[in-house]
Amino acid sequence: MPSPDPLSAIRVVLAAPSHPGNIGGAARAMLTMGLRRLVLVDPRRYPHPDAVALASGATSVLDEARVVATLDEALVGAVLAVGFSARPREFAGRVLGARDAAAEAVAHTAYGDVAMVFGTEMSGLSNDELVRCNVVGTIPSNPEYGSLKLAAAVQVVAYELRLAAGGGGIWRAPRFEPATADEIEALYAHATGTLAAMRFLDPKMPKRLLPRLRRLFARAALEKEEVNILRGILARIDHLVRR
Amino acid sequence: MPSPDPLSAIRVVLAAPSHPGNIGGAARAMLTMGLRRLVLVDPRRYPHPDAVALASGATSVLDEARVVATLDEALVGAVLAVGFSARPREFAGRVLGARDAAAEAVAHTAYGDVAMVFGTEMSGLSNDELVRCNVVGTIPSNPEYGSLKLAAAVQVVAYELRLAAGGGGIWRAPRFEPATADEIEALYAHATGTLAAMRFLDPKMPKRLLPRLRRLFARAALEKEEVNILRGILARIDHLVRR
Repeated sequence: MPSPDPLSAIRVVLAAPSHPGNIGGAARAMLTMGLRRLVLVDPRRYPHPDAVALASGATSVLDEARVVATLDEALVGAVLAVGFSARPREFAGRVLGARDAAAEAVAHTAYGDVAMVFGTEMSGLSNDELVRCNVVGTIPSNPEYGSLKLAAAVQVVAYELRLAAGGGGIWRAPRFEPATADEIEALYAHATGTLAAMRFLDPKMPKRLLPRLRRLFARAALEKEEVNILRGILARIDHLVRR
Repeated sequence: MPSPDPLSAIRVVLAAPSHPGNIGGAARAMLTMGLRRLVLVDPRRYPHPDAVALASGATSVLDEARVVATLDEALVGAVLAVGFSARPREFAGRVLGARDAAAEAVAHTAYGDVAMVFGTEMSGLSNDELVRCNVVGTIPSNPEYGSLKLAAAVQVVAYELRLAAGGGGIWRAPRFEPATADEIEALYAHATGTLAAMRFLDPKMPKRLLPRLRRLFARAALEKEEVNILRGILARIDHLVRR
Protein backbone atom coordinates (compact mmCIF):
# COMPACT_ATOMS: atom_id res chain seq x y z
CA MET A 1 0.00 0.00 0.00
CA PRO A 2 1.42 3.41 -0.83
CA SER A 3 2.06 5.91 1.96
CA PRO A 4 -0.88 8.08 3.08
CA ASP A 5 0.43 10.96 0.97
CA PRO A 6 2.46 9.28 -1.78
CA LEU A 7 3.29 12.61 -3.42
CA SER A 8 5.23 13.71 -0.34
CA ALA A 9 7.57 10.73 -0.83
CA ILE A 10 8.37 11.64 -4.41
CA ARG A 11 11.27 13.88 -5.35
CA VAL A 12 11.85 15.39 -8.75
CA VAL A 13 15.53 15.38 -9.70
CA LEU A 14 16.79 17.68 -12.45
CA ALA A 15 20.23 16.60 -13.61
CA ALA A 16 22.43 19.48 -14.76
CA PRO A 17 19.69 21.88 -15.85
CA SER A 18 21.27 24.68 -17.84
CA HIS A 19 18.53 27.34 -17.92
CA PRO A 20 17.30 28.72 -14.60
CA GLY A 21 13.94 29.58 -16.22
CA ASN A 22 13.34 25.88 -16.80
CA ILE A 23 13.98 25.17 -13.13
CA GLY A 24 11.27 27.70 -12.26
CA GLY A 25 8.92 26.23 -14.85
CA ALA A 26 9.48 22.74 -13.46
CA ALA A 27 8.79 24.00 -9.91
CA ARG A 28 5.51 25.52 -11.05
CA ALA A 29 4.50 22.34 -12.88
CA MET A 30 5.29 20.28 -9.77
CA LEU A 31 3.29 22.44 -7.39
CA THR A 32 0.22 22.47 -9.65
CA MET A 33 0.07 18.72 -9.06
CA GLY A 34 1.03 18.78 -5.37
CA LEU A 35 4.70 17.78 -5.69
CA ARG A 36 7.06 19.79 -3.52
CA ARG A 37 10.44 18.09 -3.35
CA LEU A 38 12.89 19.34 -5.95
CA VAL A 39 16.54 18.28 -6.15
CA LEU A 40 18.94 20.06 -8.50
CA VAL A 41 22.11 18.27 -9.54
CA ASP A 42 24.89 20.67 -10.39
CA PRO A 43 22.71 23.38 -11.95
CA ARG A 44 24.68 25.68 -14.22
CA ARG A 45 23.15 28.90 -12.89
CA TYR A 46 21.22 28.74 -9.64
CA PRO A 47 19.83 30.56 -7.70
CA HIS A 48 18.78 32.97 -10.45
CA PRO A 49 16.00 35.56 -10.86
CA ASP A 50 14.72 33.75 -13.99
CA ALA A 51 13.95 30.69 -11.89
CA VAL A 52 11.85 32.79 -9.51
CA ALA A 53 10.10 34.58 -12.40
CA LEU A 54 9.11 31.36 -14.18
CA ALA A 55 8.04 29.69 -10.94
CA SER A 56 5.21 32.22 -10.85
CA GLY A 57 4.26 31.85 -7.19
CA ALA A 58 5.63 28.35 -6.75
CA THR A 59 8.70 29.81 -5.07
CA SER A 60 8.13 27.66 -1.97
CA VAL A 61 9.31 24.71 -4.08
CA LEU A 62 12.46 26.64 -5.03
CA ASP A 63 13.03 27.77 -1.44
CA GLU A 64 13.01 24.15 -0.28
CA ALA A 65 14.96 22.78 -3.26
CA ARG A 66 18.13 20.86 -2.49
CA VAL A 67 21.22 21.50 -4.57
CA VAL A 68 23.68 18.60 -4.76
CA ALA A 69 26.84 17.93 -6.72
CA THR A 70 26.16 14.46 -8.15
CA LEU A 71 23.24 12.30 -9.20
CA ASP A 72 24.32 9.67 -6.65
CA GLU A 73 23.79 12.24 -3.89
CA ALA A 74 20.37 13.09 -5.31
CA LEU A 75 19.35 9.43 -5.19
CA VAL A 76 20.44 8.65 -1.61
CA GLY A 77 17.57 6.93 0.19
CA ALA A 78 15.47 6.36 -2.92
CA VAL A 79 14.05 2.85 -3.28
CA LEU A 80 13.11 3.54 -6.88
CA ALA A 81 14.58 5.94 -9.40
CA VAL A 82 12.78 6.43 -12.69
CA GLY A 83 14.98 8.08 -15.31
CA PHE A 84 13.15 9.73 -18.18
CA SER A 85 14.34 9.55 -21.74
CA ALA A 86 12.58 10.61 -24.92
CA ARG A 87 14.99 8.77 -27.18
CA PRO A 88 15.69 5.05 -27.30
CA ARG A 89 18.72 3.73 -25.44
CA GLU A 90 20.35 0.49 -26.37
CA PHE A 91 21.08 -0.70 -22.87
CA ALA A 92 17.89 0.35 -21.15
CA GLY A 93 16.26 -2.29 -18.99
CA ARG A 94 12.56 -1.91 -18.29
CA VAL A 95 10.99 0.96 -20.18
CA LEU A 96 7.61 2.24 -18.99
CA GLY A 97 5.25 4.86 -20.37
CA ALA A 98 4.58 7.83 -18.11
CA ARG A 99 1.30 6.35 -16.85
CA ASP A 100 2.80 3.00 -15.86
CA ALA A 101 5.91 4.68 -14.47
CA ALA A 102 3.71 6.87 -12.26
CA ALA A 103 1.77 3.85 -11.00
CA GLU A 104 5.01 2.06 -10.18
CA ALA A 105 6.42 5.16 -8.46
CA VAL A 106 3.34 5.57 -6.27
CA ALA A 107 3.36 1.85 -5.40
CA HIS A 108 7.01 2.11 -4.33
CA THR A 109 6.29 4.94 -1.89
CA ALA A 110 5.12 2.13 0.42
CA TYR A 111 8.80 1.25 0.85
CA GLY A 112 10.44 4.66 0.85
CA ASP A 113 11.31 7.62 -1.28
CA VAL A 114 11.01 7.61 -5.03
CA ALA A 115 12.95 9.81 -7.46
CA MET A 116 11.76 10.95 -10.88
CA VAL A 117 14.89 11.97 -12.77
CA PHE A 118 15.04 14.34 -15.74
CA GLY A 119 18.12 15.16 -17.78
CA THR A 120 19.50 18.35 -19.20
CA GLU A 121 17.36 20.25 -21.72
CA MET A 122 19.39 19.60 -24.83
CA SER A 123 20.40 15.97 -24.59
CA GLY A 124 18.50 14.40 -21.71
CA LEU A 125 20.09 12.00 -19.25
CA SER A 126 23.49 10.58 -20.18
CA ASN A 127 23.81 6.80 -20.39
CA ASP A 128 25.90 6.95 -17.25
CA GLU A 129 23.09 8.77 -15.43
CA LEU A 130 20.40 6.46 -16.82
CA VAL A 131 22.07 3.27 -15.56
CA ARG A 132 21.81 4.68 -12.03
CA CYS A 133 18.02 4.53 -12.38
CA ASN A 134 16.07 1.30 -11.84
CA VAL A 135 13.51 1.95 -14.53
CA VAL A 136 13.37 4.10 -17.61
CA GLY A 137 10.28 6.24 -18.10
CA THR A 138 9.20 7.81 -21.36
CA ILE A 139 6.34 10.04 -22.42
CA PRO A 140 4.47 8.85 -25.52
CA SER A 141 4.87 11.55 -28.15
CA ASN A 142 4.86 12.37 -31.84
CA PRO A 143 7.76 10.38 -33.32
CA GLU A 144 8.40 13.21 -35.78
CA TYR A 145 8.54 15.92 -33.13
CA GLY A 146 9.00 14.55 -29.64
CA SER A 147 10.59 17.66 -28.26
CA LEU A 148 8.75 18.39 -25.00
CA LYS A 149 10.13 21.26 -22.95
CA LEU A 150 11.68 20.20 -19.65
CA ALA A 151 8.86 21.90 -17.70
CA ALA A 152 6.26 20.30 -20.00
CA ALA A 153 7.71 16.83 -19.39
CA VAL A 154 7.68 17.47 -15.64
CA GLN A 155 4.07 18.68 -15.99
CA VAL A 156 2.88 15.49 -17.70
CA VAL A 157 4.71 13.21 -15.25
CA ALA A 158 3.52 15.22 -12.22
CA TYR A 159 -0.04 15.03 -13.56
CA GLU A 160 0.21 11.26 -13.94
CA LEU A 161 1.66 10.97 -10.42
CA ARG A 162 -1.24 12.97 -9.01
CA LEU A 163 -3.77 10.72 -10.74
CA ALA A 164 -1.89 7.56 -9.73
CA ALA A 165 -1.95 8.81 -6.12
CA GLY A 166 -5.72 9.10 -6.26
CA GLY A 167 -5.75 12.87 -6.64
CA GLY A 168 -7.89 12.89 -9.78
CA GLY A 169 -10.72 14.70 -8.06
CA ILE A 170 -12.15 17.59 -10.05
CA TRP A 171 -14.56 20.38 -9.29
CA ARG A 172 -18.23 19.84 -9.96
CA ALA A 173 -20.82 22.43 -10.79
CA PRO A 174 -23.34 22.86 -7.97
CA ARG A 175 -26.28 20.49 -8.24
CA PHE A 176 -29.73 22.01 -8.10
CA GLU A 177 -32.79 20.19 -6.82
CA PRO A 178 -33.89 17.56 -9.32
CA ALA A 179 -37.49 17.39 -10.48
CA THR A 180 -39.60 14.51 -9.21
CA ALA A 181 -41.22 11.95 -11.50
CA ASP A 182 -44.71 13.37 -10.91
CA GLU A 183 -43.55 16.91 -11.70
CA ILE A 184 -42.05 15.65 -14.94
CA GLU A 185 -45.23 13.72 -15.86
CA ALA A 186 -47.28 16.85 -15.18
CA LEU A 187 -44.94 18.72 -17.54
CA TYR A 188 -45.49 16.18 -20.33
CA ALA A 189 -49.26 16.27 -19.77
CA HIS A 190 -49.14 20.05 -19.97
CA ALA A 191 -46.95 19.96 -23.09
CA THR A 192 -49.23 17.45 -24.79
CA GLY A 193 -52.22 19.74 -24.19
CA THR A 194 -50.42 22.82 -25.39
CA LEU A 195 -48.94 21.18 -28.50
CA ALA A 196 -52.44 19.88 -29.37
CA ALA A 197 -53.97 23.34 -28.85
CA MET A 198 -51.23 24.75 -31.12
CA ARG A 199 -52.24 22.10 -33.66
CA PHE A 200 -48.63 20.95 -33.70
CA LEU A 201 -49.67 17.54 -32.38
CA ASP A 202 -52.76 15.41 -33.00
CA PRO A 203 -53.30 13.71 -29.62
CA LYS A 204 -54.84 10.72 -31.39
CA MET A 205 -51.71 10.29 -33.55
CA PRO A 206 -48.84 11.46 -31.38
CA LYS A 207 -46.30 9.60 -33.54
CA ARG A 208 -42.76 9.94 -32.31
CA LEU A 209 -42.82 13.53 -31.12
CA LEU A 210 -43.45 12.85 -27.44
CA PRO A 211 -41.01 9.95 -27.15
CA ARG A 212 -38.36 12.17 -28.73
CA LEU A 213 -39.05 14.98 -26.30
CA ARG A 214 -39.05 12.54 -23.39
CA ARG A 215 -35.70 11.18 -24.54
CA LEU A 216 -34.19 14.66 -24.79
CA PHE A 217 -35.34 15.78 -21.36
CA ALA A 218 -34.48 12.45 -19.74
CA ARG A 219 -30.90 12.86 -20.96
CA ALA A 220 -30.81 16.33 -19.51
CA ALA A 221 -32.05 15.11 -16.08
CA LEU A 222 -34.48 17.95 -15.46
CA GLU A 223 -34.25 20.11 -12.38
CA LYS A 224 -37.28 21.42 -10.49
CA GLU A 225 -36.53 24.98 -11.54
CA GLU A 226 -36.25 23.96 -15.20
CA VAL A 227 -39.63 22.23 -15.09
CA ASN A 228 -41.06 25.46 -13.74
CA ILE A 229 -39.45 27.47 -16.55
CA LEU A 230 -40.76 25.09 -19.22
CA ARG A 231 -44.27 25.13 -17.73
CA GLY A 232 -44.12 28.93 -17.67
CA ILE A 233 -43.36 28.91 -21.40
CA LEU A 234 -46.22 26.47 -22.02
CA ALA A 235 -48.63 28.64 -19.98
CA ARG A 236 -47.62 31.64 -22.07
CA ILE A 237 -48.35 29.69 -25.27
CA ASP A 238 -51.68 28.53 -23.82
CA HIS A 239 -52.54 32.18 -23.27
CA LEU A 240 -51.66 33.11 -26.86
CA VAL A 241 -53.67 30.20 -28.27
CA ARG A 242 -56.74 31.07 -26.22
CA ARG A 243 -56.68 34.76 -27.22
CA MET B 1 -15.63 4.28 -34.09
CA PRO B 2 -13.31 7.31 -34.18
CA SER B 3 -11.83 8.44 -37.49
CA PRO B 4 -8.66 6.66 -38.70
CA ASP B 5 -6.56 9.56 -37.41
CA PRO B 6 -8.65 11.11 -34.65
CA LEU B 7 -6.00 13.70 -33.86
CA SER B 8 -6.39 15.25 -37.32
CA ALA B 9 -10.05 15.98 -36.51
CA ILE B 10 -9.22 17.85 -33.32
CA ARG B 11 -8.59 21.59 -33.25
CA VAL B 12 -7.15 23.50 -30.33
CA VAL B 13 -8.86 26.86 -29.86
CA LEU B 14 -7.15 29.58 -27.82
CA ALA B 15 -9.64 32.29 -26.90
CA ALA B 16 -8.10 35.75 -26.66
CA PRO B 17 -4.55 34.74 -25.77
CA SER B 18 -2.67 37.80 -24.60
CA HIS B 19 0.97 36.67 -24.74
CA PRO B 20 2.37 35.57 -28.10
CA GLY B 21 4.95 33.43 -26.31
CA ASN B 22 2.15 31.32 -24.88
CA ILE B 23 0.76 30.77 -28.38
CA GLY B 24 4.16 29.41 -29.41
CA GLY B 25 4.37 27.26 -26.29
CA ALA B 26 0.93 25.83 -27.00
CA ALA B 27 1.91 25.08 -30.61
CA ARG B 28 4.97 23.20 -29.42
CA ALA B 29 2.95 21.24 -26.86
CA MET B 30 0.41 20.33 -29.54
CA LEU B 31 2.95 19.10 -32.04
CA THR B 32 4.76 16.94 -29.49
CA MET B 33 1.55 14.96 -29.27
CA GLY B 34 0.67 15.03 -32.97
CA LEU B 35 -1.97 17.79 -32.90
CA ARG B 36 -1.63 20.30 -35.74
CA ARG B 37 -4.78 22.39 -35.97
CA LEU B 38 -4.60 25.62 -34.00
CA VAL B 39 -7.28 28.33 -34.04
CA LEU B 40 -6.64 31.70 -32.42
CA VAL B 41 -9.63 33.82 -31.44
CA ASP B 42 -8.81 37.51 -31.45
CA PRO B 43 -5.21 37.21 -30.24
CA ARG B 44 -3.93 40.44 -28.76
CA ARG B 45 -0.55 40.33 -30.52
CA TYR B 46 -0.12 37.91 -33.40
CA PRO B 47 1.89 37.16 -35.48
CA HIS B 48 4.79 37.94 -33.19
CA PRO B 49 8.44 36.81 -33.00
CA ASP B 50 7.89 35.54 -29.41
CA ALA B 51 5.38 33.02 -30.74
CA VAL B 52 7.95 31.68 -33.20
CA ALA B 53 10.70 31.60 -30.56
CA LEU B 54 8.61 29.66 -28.04
CA ALA B 55 7.29 27.28 -30.71
CA SER B 56 10.88 25.99 -30.97
CA GLY B 57 10.59 24.22 -34.31
CA ALA B 58 6.84 23.69 -34.20
CA THR B 59 6.38 26.68 -36.50
CA SER B 60 4.43 24.54 -39.00
CA VAL B 61 1.56 24.64 -36.50
CA LEU B 62 1.81 28.43 -36.35
CA ASP B 63 2.03 28.71 -40.14
CA GLU B 64 -1.21 26.76 -40.52
CA ALA B 65 -2.98 28.43 -37.58
CA ARG B 66 -6.30 30.12 -38.34
CA VAL B 67 -7.01 33.52 -36.81
CA VAL B 68 -10.69 34.33 -36.33
CA ALA B 69 -12.59 37.15 -34.67
CA THR B 70 -15.05 35.26 -32.49
CA LEU B 71 -15.38 31.97 -30.65
CA ASP B 72 -18.47 31.16 -32.71
CA GLU B 73 -16.35 31.30 -35.87
CA ALA B 74 -13.76 29.05 -34.26
CA LEU B 75 -16.42 26.45 -33.48
CA VAL B 76 -18.06 26.28 -36.92
CA GLY B 77 -18.37 22.63 -37.96
CA ALA B 78 -17.43 21.23 -34.55
CA VAL B 79 -19.72 18.44 -33.30
CA LEU B 80 -18.23 18.71 -29.83
CA ALA B 81 -16.57 21.62 -28.06
CA VAL B 82 -14.85 20.98 -24.75
CA GLY B 83 -14.20 24.19 -22.82
CA PHE B 84 -11.52 23.97 -20.16
CA SER B 85 -11.83 25.66 -16.82
CA ALA B 86 -9.65 25.29 -13.75
CA ARG B 87 -12.15 26.99 -11.46
CA PRO B 88 -15.70 25.90 -10.64
CA ARG B 89 -18.53 27.53 -12.57
CA GLU B 90 -22.03 27.65 -11.21
CA PHE B 91 -23.83 27.01 -14.47
CA ALA B 92 -21.55 24.37 -15.93
CA GLY B 93 -23.31 21.30 -17.28
CA ARG B 94 -21.25 18.11 -17.57
CA VAL B 95 -17.78 18.48 -16.13
CA LEU B 96 -15.18 15.90 -17.12
CA GLY B 97 -11.58 15.39 -16.02
CA ALA B 98 -8.97 15.71 -18.76
CA ARG B 99 -8.77 11.94 -19.27
CA ASP B 100 -12.52 11.46 -19.71
CA ALA B 101 -12.78 14.61 -21.81
CA ALA B 102 -10.08 13.29 -24.13
CA ALA B 103 -11.88 9.96 -24.49
CA GLU B 104 -15.12 11.75 -25.31
CA ALA B 105 -13.36 14.01 -27.80
CA VAL B 106 -11.76 11.10 -29.63
CA ALA B 107 -15.08 9.21 -29.70
CA HIS B 108 -16.78 12.25 -31.25
CA THR B 109 -14.29 12.43 -34.11
CA ALA B 110 -16.42 9.64 -35.62
CA TYR B 111 -19.04 12.32 -36.32
CA GLY B 112 -16.90 15.29 -37.25
CA ASP B 113 -14.51 17.86 -35.89
CA VAL B 114 -13.90 18.40 -32.21
CA ALA B 115 -12.66 21.59 -30.55
CA MET B 116 -10.68 21.82 -27.33
CA VAL B 117 -11.10 25.37 -26.09
CA PHE B 118 -8.77 27.21 -23.72
CA GLY B 119 -9.34 30.67 -22.27
CA THR B 120 -7.09 33.62 -21.76
CA GLU B 121 -4.10 33.18 -19.45
CA MET B 122 -5.28 35.28 -16.53
CA SER B 123 -8.93 34.43 -16.13
CA GLY B 124 -9.69 31.47 -18.38
CA LEU B 125 -12.85 31.23 -20.45
CA SER B 126 -15.64 33.69 -19.67
CA ASN B 127 -19.03 32.26 -18.73
CA ASP B 128 -20.30 33.48 -22.06
CA GLU B 129 -17.59 31.52 -23.85
CA LEU B 130 -18.08 28.44 -21.70
CA VAL B 131 -21.80 28.12 -22.47
CA ARG B 132 -20.89 27.81 -26.15
CA CYS B 133 -19.11 24.55 -25.31
CA ASN B 134 -21.00 21.27 -24.91
CA VAL B 135 -18.86 19.92 -22.14
CA VAL B 136 -16.55 21.44 -19.57
CA GLY B 137 -13.12 19.86 -19.15
CA THR B 138 -10.84 20.35 -16.18
CA ILE B 139 -7.38 19.14 -15.26
CA PRO B 140 -7.11 17.63 -11.78
CA SER B 141 -4.66 19.78 -9.84
CA ASN B 142 -3.49 20.91 -6.43
CA PRO B 143 -6.45 22.80 -4.94
CA GLU B 144 -4.01 25.16 -3.21
CA TYR B 145 -2.08 25.99 -6.39
CA GLY B 146 -3.89 25.02 -9.54
CA SER B 147 -2.19 27.55 -11.70
CA LEU B 148 -1.07 25.62 -14.81
CA LYS B 149 0.47 27.71 -17.55
CA LEU B 150 -1.60 27.85 -20.73
CA ALA B 151 1.01 25.82 -22.63
CA ALA B 152 1.19 23.33 -19.74
CA ALA B 153 -2.59 22.83 -19.78
CA VAL B 154 -2.48 22.31 -23.55
CA GLN B 155 0.38 19.84 -23.03
CA VAL B 156 -1.57 17.71 -20.55
CA VAL B 157 -4.72 17.70 -22.68
CA ALA B 158 -2.78 16.96 -25.88
CA TYR B 159 -1.04 14.09 -24.10
CA GLU B 160 -4.37 12.65 -22.98
CA LEU B 161 -5.75 13.02 -26.51
CA ARG B 162 -2.79 11.15 -27.94
CA LEU B 163 -3.26 8.30 -25.48
CA ALA B 164 -7.04 8.23 -26.04
CA ALA B 165 -6.38 8.01 -29.79
CA GLY B 166 -4.25 4.92 -29.25
CA GLY B 167 -0.94 6.72 -29.66
CA GLY B 168 0.52 5.55 -26.36
CA GLY B 169 3.27 3.58 -28.04
CA ILE B 170 6.69 4.13 -26.56
CA TRP B 171 10.18 3.18 -27.60
CA ARG B 172 11.60 -0.09 -26.42
CA ALA B 173 15.20 -0.97 -25.85
CA PRO B 174 16.41 -3.53 -28.38
CA ARG B 175 15.79 -7.11 -27.30
CA PHE B 176 18.72 -9.46 -27.41
CA GLU B 177 18.37 -13.17 -27.96
CA PRO B 178 16.90 -14.82 -24.87
CA ALA B 179 18.57 -17.81 -23.30
CA THR B 180 16.82 -21.15 -23.71
CA ALA B 181 15.61 -23.25 -20.77
CA ASP B 182 18.39 -25.82 -21.24
CA GLU B 183 21.08 -23.11 -21.32
CA ILE B 184 19.68 -21.70 -18.08
CA GLU B 185 19.57 -25.14 -16.43
CA ALA B 186 23.16 -25.74 -17.50
CA LEU B 187 24.06 -22.41 -15.85
CA TYR B 188 22.42 -23.45 -12.55
CA ALA B 189 24.15 -26.82 -12.68
CA HIS B 190 27.47 -25.05 -13.29
CA ALA B 191 26.77 -22.54 -10.50
CA THR B 192 25.86 -25.31 -8.05
CA GLY B 193 29.13 -27.07 -8.77
CA THR B 194 31.18 -23.90 -8.43
CA LEU B 195 29.47 -22.73 -5.25
CA ALA B 196 30.04 -26.17 -3.73
CA ALA B 197 33.71 -26.12 -4.75
CA MET B 198 34.00 -22.67 -3.15
CA ARG B 199 32.45 -24.20 -0.01
CA PHE B 200 29.78 -21.53 -0.16
CA LEU B 201 27.10 -24.17 -0.65
CA ASP B 202 26.71 -27.66 0.75
CA PRO B 203 25.01 -29.54 -2.12
CA LYS B 204 23.32 -31.85 0.41
CA MET B 205 21.80 -28.86 2.23
CA PRO B 206 21.27 -26.23 -0.44
CA LYS B 207 18.73 -24.43 1.73
CA ARG B 208 17.26 -21.39 0.04
CA LEU B 209 20.30 -20.14 -1.84
CA LEU B 210 19.51 -21.71 -5.20
CA PRO B 211 15.80 -20.87 -5.16
CA ARG B 212 16.72 -17.25 -4.40
CA LEU B 213 19.21 -17.15 -7.25
CA ARG B 214 16.68 -18.78 -9.57
CA ARG B 215 14.10 -16.16 -8.56
CA LEU B 216 16.51 -13.29 -9.20
CA PHE B 217 17.55 -14.53 -12.63
CA ALA B 218 14.03 -15.53 -13.62
CA ARG B 219 12.90 -11.96 -12.94
CA ALA B 220 15.72 -10.66 -15.08
CA ALA B 221 14.77 -12.96 -18.01
CA LEU B 222 18.31 -13.98 -18.92
CA GLU B 223 19.70 -13.43 -22.38
CA LYS B 224 22.03 -15.91 -24.14
CA GLU B 225 24.93 -13.48 -23.92
CA GLU B 226 24.36 -12.96 -20.19
CA VAL B 227 24.39 -16.72 -19.54
CA ASN B 228 27.72 -16.84 -21.38
CA ILE B 229 29.10 -13.99 -19.23
CA LEU B 230 27.96 -15.66 -16.01
CA ARG B 231 29.42 -19.01 -17.06
CA GLY B 232 32.66 -17.23 -17.91
CA ILE B 233 32.79 -15.85 -14.37
CA LEU B 234 32.01 -19.29 -12.94
CA ALA B 235 34.76 -20.86 -15.08
CA ARG B 236 37.23 -18.28 -13.77
CA ILE B 237 36.26 -19.13 -10.19
CA ASP B 238 36.59 -22.85 -10.97
CA HIS B 239 40.10 -22.13 -12.16
CA LEU B 240 40.98 -20.25 -8.94
CA VAL B 241 39.51 -22.99 -6.74
CA ARG B 242 41.41 -25.71 -8.55
CA ARG B 243 44.72 -23.89 -8.31
